[in-house]
Amino acid sequence: MTDQRFPHRHLLGIQGLGPQEITAILDLADGYVDQNRSVDKRKNLLRGRTLVNLFFENSTRTRTSFELAGKRLGADVINMQTQASSVAKGETLIDTAMTLNAMHLDALVVRHPDSGAVKLLSEKVNCAVINGGDGSHEHPTQALLDALTIRRHKGRLAGLTVAICGDVVHSRVARSNIYLLNTMGAQVRLIGPKTLMPAAVDRMGVDVYHDMRKGLDGVDVVMMLRIQNERMKGNFIPSIREYFHFFGLDREKLAMAKPDAVIMHPGPMNRGVEIDSDVADDVERSLIREQVEMGVAVRMACLDLLTRNIPNQVAV
Amino acid sequence: MTDQRFPHRHLLGIQGLGPQEITAILDLADGYVDQNRSVDKRKNLLRGRTLVNLFFENSTRTRTSFELAGKRLGADVINMQTQASSVAKGETLIDTAMTLNAMHLDALVVRHPDSGAVKLLSEKVNCAVINGGDGSHEHPTQALLDALTIRRHKGRLAGLTVAICGDVVHSRVARSNIYLLNTMGAQVRLIGPKTLMPAAVDRMGVDVYHDMRKGLDGVDVVMMLRIQNERMKGNFIPSIREYFHFFGLDREKLAMAKPDAVIMHPGPMNRGVEIDSDVADDVERSLIREQVEMGVAVRMACLDLLTRNIPNQVAV
Amino acid sequence: MTDQRFPHRHLLGIQGLGPQEITAILDLADGYVDQNRSVDKRKNLLRGRTLVNLFFENSTRTRTSFELAGKRLGADVINMQTQASSVAKGETLIDTAMTLNAMHLDALVVRHPDSGAVKLLSEKVNCAVINGGDGSHEHPTQALLDALTIRRHKGRLAGLTVAICGDVVHSRVARSNIYLLNTMGAQVRLIGPKTLMPAAVDRMGVDVYHDMRKGLDGVDVVMMLRIQNERMKGNFIPSIREYFHFFGLDREKLAMAKPDAVIMHPGPMNRGVEIDSDVADDVERSLIREQVEMGVAVRMACLDLLTRNIPNQVAV
Repeated sequence: MTDQRFPHRHLLGIQGLGPQEITAILDLADGYVDQNRSVDKRKNLLRGRTLVNLFFENSTRTRTSFELAGKRLGADVINMQTQASSVAKGETLIDTAMTLNAMHLDALVVRHPDSGAVKLLSEKVNCAVINGGDGSHEHPTQALLDALTIRRHKGRLAGLTVAICGDVVHSRVARSNIYLLNTMGAQVRLIGPKTLMPAAVDRMGVDVYHDMRKGLDGVDVVMMLRIQNERMKGNFIPSIREYFHFFGLDREKLAMAKPDAVIMHPGPMNRGVEIDSDVADDVERSLIREQVEMGVAVRMACLDLLTRNIPNQVAV
Repeated sequence: MTDQRFPHRHLLGIQGLGPQEITAILDLADGYVDQNRSVDKRKNLLRGRTLVNLFFENSTRTRTSFELAGKRLGADVINMQTQASSVAKGETLIDTAMTLNAMHLDALVVRHPDSGAVKLLSEKVNCAVINGGDGSHEHPTQALLDALTIRRHKGRLAGLTVAICGDVVHSRVARSNIYLLNTMGAQVRLIGPKTLMPAAVDRMGVDVYHDMRKGLDGVDVVMMLRIQNERMKGNFIPSIREYFHFFGLDREKLAMAKPDAVIMHPGPMNRGVEIDSDVADDVERSLIREQVEMGVAVRMACLDLLTRNIPNQVAV
Repeated sequence: MTDQRFPHRHLLGIQGLGPQEITAILDLADGYVDQNRSVDKRKNLLRGRTLVNLFFENSTRTRTSFELAGKRLGADVINMQTQASSVAKGETLIDTAMTLNAMHLDALVVRHPDSGAVKLLSEKVNCAVINGGDGSHEHPTQALLDALTIRRHKGRLAGLTVAICGDVVHSRVARSNIYLLNTMGAQVRLIGPKTLMPAAVDRMGVDVYHDMRKGLDGVDVVMMLRIQNERMKGNFIPSIREYFHFFGLDREKLAMAKPDAVIMHPGPMNRGVEIDSDVADDVERSLIREQVEMGVAVRMACLDLLTRNIPNQVAV
């Protein structure tokens, strides 16, 4: 009974997905964009199904987006906000998984501060698991919503040049976007200080720039990343003011990009740190609000596809 | 497609509403009182619509009342409890508004500690915004539920004398009630120590009393306010004991009011501070529980009317 | 209109229930187990009804189980997580009850740190109240789900020997299970150090063992209790290591029980404290996951039966 468009039990990351699978999600999501713009946004596709949002990190935005997606498909949605316990983490996580599994979930969205925790959990349950962000590993639905946003504006992904700017080393958003854009035939440039670049950047199939003006020269898409102060252990950046001077997106640096280049940011923005309000609010070129809109549609598409692939459950 | 009974996008306050608009809400709410008393309390009127409760202040009661109202109309309801950040408040609020707007909400209930924050937010979104209480400015659904409670007991609002007693200066409940009662032709008396009266009390169309017995003389309705210790910056009241002696409602002071005067309180009560348990629990005259019941009905009416007025959304 | 299978307004405890009433819940729950294993897990039985989960103690598991139960029956479910205020507790609790009652609930699940608080609250409301755990008094749905789990594996409860091991004195789970198992004709043994036995243990109709090997000799069911460090005021246990040595369930002590004895734990487990992972994860004999599954079914049955017994509400 597996849907051949997306023959997977879980969505743990973009790495390993092929262009047809990514395209299947984006195509399905396009239809949900229209549904979300109509008065009756609810379908009964997942009626009687159970979705649990299990968040070990606080994230009102992502949780709300998944909650909306599940409810608009008619599912019963349960939120579980909890803390990743510091001791015996592995065992507790697995016991949590087994407990939830025994409640006969159909889909489980997990956000966790540790890279790999979502995969570990997915191996213990019968339901579909969606990675809602794990450590600095992956955040696949963010990359998918970014791709949908770009595709709707540029008509394609292949052949575009996309600059990802800022705190790449800590960013699961960057990682998932690099995988997706490479797979879809876009050219990725990473821009940022050396201290914010991953060690393995040479093997990622990307071009690296430490001078933002050079990095933005001729790009189609500028993706800014959030400076995550909470992950900044050590001296990654000298000062906010200096950071903005070199790597903050403003009108003047943006002028290096193509005249029709679009601006993106996964939110929430640190205005005046990594992005100037002047460009963040540019009604012609900033797609930041549309990214949020695409987020609900992409998550509906993921829930839709994955729940087609789970067998009828008969035992715990 | 605007409903002529209530031709507004938002409900930000009572100030500016006319008697016909107030009456339209109360009339519609009367029907929801009956629905809420039946076994099947759910209607499909708002099926496929999305309501978000965005609370920057903690309030389990009000949030629960709106959540129930939305669910009983068949809407998908999402709760977002958050803190009003101390820095860059304006920007963060507007980014929050834009994020929510991009999710295609139909209605947004906002509670915020700053007067005016809800109006600012309402200017940035396409959906209907209901003020769930902003600073010491307004709390319109509380005034409407108070009015419905009075009207059902007294048969009318016009011509009644209503005493509002206690911490008027900090009270958005008092402010909204003054506007509403004045508009509907009731006579309002404010009772309390000088330190708890607003500076502009002379221009509010009310009578002011600093002696509670005189203020209660011959009134039809006694509305007690909650002493909000959290807002008491400075020496507004000398001591709880002294406050209760002069301004706490007890059987003896109540005897000054009309024999059929009713007692109200927006809750939660500080028993023994602003009100004595003996009168709070008076089954004949205390309408405190009924106020809670009317709250759900009034909020259903507001959601019903406002969502009739939002256009089909087609873009973010 | 009272359902004769369970002619009670509330489920406050197991004490006082007869074998036919317990059997009625278990029989009904059996059907919900099947429903929860199918794709469409939602029924419309409680459509238009309102369930509130009022938790004065944190418990994600139990809250989630009741939330799922309510949603799968089609009810509107509202969660209220709050703190038991330290002052004027009684009054606040009663005001909370009256407020909720005025909102026309149909069912109210209450968890509270004080024994007896749920009963007090149930006397003030018109809706059905289910005790979700009160202090060290009772946790009736836990005992019912344990009974359902045992009955499905052993085919009966009467005539079985069940050992309840560990921190009995603080355990509402133990108390409810003792009442239920005694009522259904099972023989209960309590195993643990003297410091963790209730003072009234002689009048409970149970056999007491302080030597775990002797206590487990020939039993059909081994129920381990969670060591509740948060309730351990004083020197109840010497050290974790020593506790595990004498009263932790491991393969070697388990060998004393019948060869087909089953292992249970209400969760969450302290692995290595009261139970060894080796036996907790024994796929043949550990019923710990199944207990969670039965929990949702039993709570659906309780909500189903109790809401049949509430009259149509007409006043607050």
